[in-house]
Amino acid sequence: MGFYAAPVERLIEEFEKLPGIGHKTAQRLAFHVLNLPDEKVSKLVSAIKEAKEKITYCSVCNNLTDVDPCSICSSATRQRSVICVVQNPRDVAAMERTREFKGLYHVLNGVISPMEGIGPDDIKINELIARVEKGDISEVVLATNPNTEGEATAMYIAKKLKKYGVKTTRIAHGIPVGGDLEYADEVTLARALEGRREI
Amino acid sequence: MGFYAAPVERLIEEFEKLPGIGHKTAQRLAFHVLNLPDEKVSKLVSAIKEAKEKITYCSVCNNLTDVDPCSICSSATRQRSVICVVQNPRDVAAMERTREFKGLYHVLNGVISPMEGIGPDDIKINELIARVEKGDISEVVLATNPNTEGEATAMYIAKKLKKYGVKTTRIAHGIPVGGDLEYADEVTLARALEGRREI
Repeated sequence: MGFYAAPVERLIEEFEKLPGIGHKTAQRLAFHVLNLPDEKVSKLVSAIKEAKEKITYCSVCNNLTDVDPCSICSSATRQRSVICVVQNPRDVAAMERTREFKGLYHVLNGVISPMEGIGPDDIKINELIARVEKGDISEVVLATNPNTEGEATAMYIAKKLKKYGVKTTRIAHGIPVGGDLEYADEVTLARALEGRREI
Repeated sequence: MGFYAAPVERLIEEFEKLPGIGHKTAQRLAFHVLNLPDEKVSKLVSAIKEAKEKITYCSVCNNLTDVDPCSICSSATRQRSVICVVQNPRDVAAMERTREFKGLYHVLNGVISPMEGIGPDDIKINELIARVEKGDISEVVLATNPNTEGEATAMYIAKKLKKYGVKTTRIAHGIPVGGDLEYADEVTLARALEGRREI
């Protein structure tokens, strides 16, 4: 503490608050920023400010967006009767990268987790039900993560949606492409076997 | 590309330009910033701006500082006849942490490296010689890194300072405290032996 000038210390401290940034990395970032030309620093600063100012949650799907409704929700070419339910905006990007899914999304912005005190009402499940209630939805694809919380959340949503007679599906579990049977854990392997298909 | 709203993409891009930050980490940082409360984001932004605006190089020792001359150069309690030569401001902080050195510093802001096209005139060697020329300096401690470039730079400076009759010393090489003889490389061990002292 106190071996650098105060503004440098403050900058290091601020960088240290970011996730995954330790003290050494924060120092490195701070000195990097100090050595940058002015215009590059203002580009960084304005990118932070602009993203923070312009980005909101889409009122339909809760994805991050700079226009409301977001570009996916307002697209004319998407299949509007299928909703894919994901945990966060990064999962939307992951799904989009596959270029396989043509429907709409619903971002829960979290997952049911009794350990962390997050219940069904703390994430956007009611908003999803409202969308299904409005009708015209033929299928809801549950694409929460394949771990305890993700499974529980998927089960909860599936149960809730039962009475609306909408088809509810869960993404498949199995051996990742390029993976190795030998190194797969038993649960994954069991699921892969369970989900086997005729070829 | 293009799976997030434009301001988010831009923010991820800006974070990616920082050293040691890959695409995944940049995404994580961007989403972290988007989820932060407004006042925390403005603290980060103002820390960057303030550090960039207020920090300059000390006109005496070239250390980073918000007052000129820096707090070490203008301190009344430091031993003004000893100068420790280091490569960058982080090394000053490292030396200060030892609480053993009471003299002044001279930050080279680099090291002679023919491979990268950095010659003696590209770093602050002439400024160091000017300080020694002015007189009242009894010892120059060369604390550049113990690698090829650091050694070469130390040798060069020592040669340049010879005619001023100032005592020039080099920090000791040896086994790190808490280190293990078994795992020390031969060069370090040879240096440790060479530098042995009576106890």
